[in-house]
Amino acid sequence: MKYNKITVDGNTATANIAYALSEIATIYPITPSSTMAEVYEDLSNKNTQNIFGDVPKVVEMQSEAGAAGAMHGALAGGSVATTFTASQGLLLMIPNMYKIAGELLPNVIHVSARTIATHALSIFGDHSDVMSIRGTGYAMLASSSVQECQDLALAAHIATLTSSVPFVHFFDGFRTSHEINTIKSIDIEDIKKIYPYNKLKEFKALALNSKTPHAQGTAQNPDVYFQNREASNKYYDNVPNCVEDAFDKIYSITGRRYHTFDYVGAKDATDVIVIMGSGASTVEQTIDYLNGKGKKYGVVIVRLYRPFDSKRFIQTLPSSVKRISVLDRVKECGAQGEPLYKDVVCALAEAGKQVQVFGGRYGLSSKEFTPSMVGAVYENMTSNSPINHFSVGINDDITHKSLKITNVIHPSLQKVYACKFYGYGGDGTVSANKNSIKIITETTDNNGQAYFEYDSKKSGNATISHLRFGKGEINSPYLIDDIDFVAIHNETYVTKYNVLKNVKPNGIVLLNTSWEGLTLSKMLPNHIKLYIAKNNLKLYTIDAYKIAKEIGLGNKINLIMQAAFFKLIDIIPYDIAKKQMKDFAFKSYGKKGEVVLNRNYSAIDKAEENLKEIQIPSNWAKLTSCEECGATSCKYFKEYIDPIQKLEGNELPVSSFNERGYVPTGTTQYEKRGVATALPKWDSANCIQCNMCSFVCPHGAI
Amino acid sequence: MKYNKITVDGNTATANIAYALSEIATIYPITPSSTMAEVYEDLSNKNTQNIFGDVPKVVEMQSEAGAAGAMHGALAGGSVATTFTASQGLLLMIPNMYKIAGELLPNVIHVSARTIATHALSIFGDHSDVMSIRGTGYAMLASSSVQECQDLALAAHIATLTSSVPFVHFFDGFRTSHEINTIKSIDIEDIKKIYPYNKLKEFKALALNSKTPHAQGTAQNPDVYFQNREASNKYYDNVPNCVEDAFDKIYSITGRRYHTFDYVGAKDATDVIVIMGSGASTVEQTIDYLNGKGKKYGVVIVRLYRPFDSKRFIQTLPSSVKRISVLDRVKECGAQGEPLYKDVVCALAEAGKQVQVFGGRYGLSSKEFTPSMVGAVYENMTSNSPINHFSVGINDDITHKSLKITNVIHPSLQKVYACKFYGYGGDGTVSANKNSIKIITETTDNNGQAYFEYDSKKSGNATISHLRFGKGEINSPYLIDDIDFVAIHNETYVTKYNVLKNVKPNGIVLLNTSWEGLTLSKMLPNHIKLYIAKNNLKLYTIDAYKIAKEIGLGNKINLIMQAAFFKLIDIIPYDIAKKQMKDFAFKSYGKKGEVVLNRNYSAIDKAEENLKEIQIPSNWAKLTSCEECGATSCKYFKEYIDPIQKLEGNELPVSSFNERGYVPTGTTQYEKRGVATALPKWDSANCIQCNMCSFVCPHGAI
Repeated sequence: MKYNKITVDGNTATANIAYALSEIATIYPITPSSTMAEVYEDLSNKNTQNIFGDVPKVVEMQSEAGAAGAMHGALAGGSVATTFTASQGLLLMIPNMYKIAGELLPNVIHVSARTIATHALSIFGDHSDVMSIRGTGYAMLASSSVQECQDLALAAHIATLTSSVPFVHFFDGFRTSHEINTIKSIDIEDIKKIYPYNKLKEFKALALNSKTPHAQGTAQNPDVYFQNREASNKYYDNVPNCVEDAFDKIYSITGRRYHTFDYVGAKDATDVIVIMGSGASTVEQTIDYLNGKGKKYGVVIVRLYRPFDSKRFIQTLPSSVKRISVLDRVKECGAQGEPLYKDVVCALAEAGKQVQVFGGRYGLSSKEFTPSMVGAVYENMTSNSPINHFSVGINDDITHKSLKITNVIHPSLQKVYACKFYGYGGDGTVSANKNSIKIITETTDNNGQAYFEYDSKKSGNATISHLRFGKGEINSPYLIDDIDFVAIHNETYVTKYNVLKNVKPNGIVLLNTSWEGLTLSKMLPNHIKLYIAKNNLKLYTIDAYKIAKEIGLGNKINLIMQAAFFKLIDIIPYDIAKKQMKDFAFKSYGKKGEVVLNRNYSAIDKAEENLKEIQIPSNWAKLTSCEECGATSCKYFKEYIDPIQKLEGNELPVSSFNERGYVPTGTTQYEKRGVATALPKWDSANCIQCNMCSFVCPHGAI
Repeated sequence: MKYNKITVDGNTATANIAYALSEIATIYPITPSSTMAEVYEDLSNKNTQNIFGDVPKVVEMQSEAGAAGAMHGALAGGSVATTFTASQGLLLMIPNMYKIAGELLPNVIHVSARTIATHALSIFGDHSDVMSIRGTGYAMLASSSVQECQDLALAAHIATLTSSVPFVHFFDGFRTSHEINTIKSIDIEDIKKIYPYNKLKEFKALALNSKTPHAQGTAQNPDVYFQNREASNKYYDNVPNCVEDAFDKIYSITGRRYHTFDYVGAKDATDVIVIMGSGASTVEQTIDYLNGKGKKYGVVIVRLYRPFDSKRFIQTLPSSVKRISVLDRVKECGAQGEPLYKDVVCALAEAGKQVQVFGGRYGLSSKEFTPSMVGAVYENMTSNSPINHFSVGINDDITHKSLKITNVIHPSLQKVYACKFYGYGGDGTVSANKNSIKIITETTDNNGQAYFEYDSKKSGNATISHLRFGKGEINSPYLIDDIDFVAIHNETYVTKYNVLKNVKPNGIVLLNTSWEGLTLSKMLPNHIKLYIAKNNLKLYTIDAYKIAKEIGLGNKINLIMQAAFFKLIDIIPYDIAKKQMKDFAFKSYGKKGEVVLNRNYSAIDKAEENLKEIQIPSNWAKLTSCEECGATSCKYFKEYIDPIQKLEGNELPVSSFNERGYVPTGTTQYEKRGVATALPKWDSANCIQCNMCSFVCPHGAI
């Protein structure tokens, strides 16, 4: 049991295993799965060997349909092939998936599960893509954390060979695929100990070859198709055993124990949630907390979703269970209930068990799923007028099926330090934070977690980084809401966003600003000053843009802000932190030459001396919070765009939306971001009237 | 209520309505849906007007993905668009279907439901394609007969406009799409009376246009996607009402009554089958018969499958029900049960009803589903050891989940005359029989049904035509098994197939052969002669190939055999029949000039005089049936190819099949069809050694 503590995202944890256990990946990139193919290709370019001692190949096709077709061909030829996809990409693979499963070709498709475009496109995560392939005959294995991405990817690659049934291994897009967390790696030599080489040999012996030829993929008529279709039943019946067997083997090399279904919670639980994906970790953490306060709650975490083993599911439930809520991260219009709900109802009905079952939807398109929502789901089960087919996490003021959040729950079971960073898309904040969490976890005995909120506008919009670190495992797949440290990398954000929301008393605020003294006091809105004073926050400022300009880094303030962060949180002796930051800067900029490198070193050095602690005037505590931004009189702006711009889109009720996803045109006029750190001025003396400026300005303002 | 009695297939019945109620069809052809697009295009080419007074347009794209994309665009632009597809074609439409449903664009896709390729491709019918789109948000309406194809197509086109939810209207590929039956047409003027023109106007007002612009199909982020996704709930809740309303309107102009679920059977039934598609007619007919013998059986016919209205389903069930068997025409590997089964279990669970539910699969890839199988399903429910998740129609000797057929049921409730024709693929038998059923239904007060068994080899293999006619409606969507008349259009079939199977006592046998007298007696196998003698069959021969050659028609024997058929069955005075046959010949060959036309007329005229009744020698009744064809010693041939070649593939048990669909290579050597009606001989005097013969011979025998 040799392992390293590594801090990686879910995509990387998955791709490392996929690479070690395959010979070819046929790919086509789609968010949020692309990283997996990139990691795979990177390993291949570095001539890294898989467990068979070969260097796997990557083939990029013209679409996911081609990727699946090429994979089918590779498999028929006896190659261990894999691919990575999501959303519409998975939909394009469906025809080939029916064929691959029909021919019992062992295979793993790794899916960072993402919303399918409906009334609107969304690049974010839910289970609508994986649920749309549940008829194809692929087995389906769900990971709920970064650690599981690695471990269950391994289980999938083993079980597909031992069962001959192809697998989709999936996890929540962005929430898990892009969450960076500290996990225990699996050593390639340990994998070799448990890999079913005999089954690999059987698979290769069955492949198309000229020495012992056979034909496959024939056409059949009504006389024989049905019988042949039933001939594979025994393989499917055997899949749950193969998965349990793979889990046993993984336990033998890691000490980590998984089952097709895992139960966590009170042994005599009356109320149980059934869930799969990252939400399971949130439920687990919440019931640890609530059971500590006397509740008798439990959760069944579904790992093997297809084939759905009803018997094992029933055995996993505590006999004391009276009520079950099944949470689905998908909406299936026109069905009486979502897919997992129906599986659970059928399993109970076939077992003759009298349990009340509720179904609910949560987390569509990466909508936050928090401990407070988990609490609401348990409360709904025991209420006098429980809602079935509810939604949780939104306010549905049309059909009134959404659960109300009455209690806010912070299950701070473990001491974690939580930091939030408001960056400016493209300013390097996200990259710096990825390095910071690696520095902390590699230099100290802390584990770390980093998650990043972006929107689909990419560059130029706010990015919000969420960092947690602490001594134990950090399985909190939701945004931080108990904040010890907040950094605001753009001063305009203090009026645009509620940047101090959920900052704890005595917390630290770091503001990148040129404002000083009275200007600072004047520019900060009253509600910010009031919050700082009342909660005894410590306020620090730094003029990072000025420093960056001085040392020749232009707008790149990320290292300055990173250094200020390390200085303030004081988790690592500052000299060591500086050395670490410089090591990472070397990795990033070493190739760009000494001049660039020295500027970056200088950025790190200059932060400390430019950091200023602000003495909070006593009158701040007496202010009243009354500002309201003027804005336009446009109803659509006030009721729709403005809340979204303030990062308060989550609060919009269902009635705010056109049911077809229609929006008015000409609305860009209302989105004046006003976040530029410098404004260009026309210099008539230098102008040669080339007119390039009119092409360059993205807003056509010139 | 003006109507004509018309004799058409399900595709044509559907396409007529789709044409009348749309402005554009974006298509890509796929078996068995292609006829719908062909009929649509044909009407368009003839400048036929739809109910809006326009001539609809047809656009053929490069694949079904393009057809769906173009349709999406047409709908967004306010055009009433439709399409026709099946199987993999439907799979390629999935991404656009999520979008169309998400944007609540009214639309109908007509699907002749077909098997999705798995271990083998199949062009035949089951519900695997339509079940794979049940997550898209399309409503789903199922027709179970040719009459319903017309009526429910109309319901779909009305309800999609009144509900704003797009519809898939589907029916069983081949079994319904290609079955010819006598139905009552709906007059276009009657449709105009019930069409929701106001809703059409609303749809067009919502379309993209430059006067009142809006944007649609935007990108959304986690803050708002979920809420917007829930905003369409009320539209889905309303679909069942819209469908019931459309059914009411159709009742008002046709007198035919449909509901989202229809119950047929004993009011106090204890055992009920739930089913959709053509199988429903078989069940209905069987329980009419069995209840007449004292059983208390019932059937729920599912018409609106999505949204699944649990409340209406429960209300449809008789309160006396104790056991339900749900029959699905699809296999979903890895699920605990097939989709309709799970819907029913959930509906009962939510209603708190204690009913025992069994799930079963039937009819995959157009496997026959007969009254005897229906009987077995009812018997299973009440047996001491009922099987759940059974299959019916095959012998599963591996997992032993198939039901045994213990009683053969012939529910001959109405007097029908049943005729079977063994044709030679490409000889014109199928076309002639399509004409024959039209002649019978148009000339007499009979209704008619015609169904054709082909295999996917197309030309050169046996085609089997199944014709029924009689006074009442003919709702028997299964092959004929009580045969009054059998025609064998190729003499070699008497040794290849069991051509007299299920021929009734006193039935008529028509054999196209050059054999006469002692040769005939020598060439007919003993089991044929024995069967003829024992069952008092009347045997007629005609040498149609000789006549065809004499009059210059080459191998085209269809009109000669058709004329012999009309002469023998004597349903229409023969002079009138001859006139009708000549009218149809004129339609088919009129354009080819007088010479060709006269040859065809001559074929009709010559049949009567060449028909010979054979006196059955008394010793035929004393023969023993003992022939066994020698064949090869190859195990694969004996156990697999030989039964299939004898048209006995249906009897092969599950254990005969490789579970991956693998077959040995080089097996064409065993398939010596030996059905050629003439053999070429090399004439050395004429040979110029051009060597073209080696290209021409399909078997490479030269």
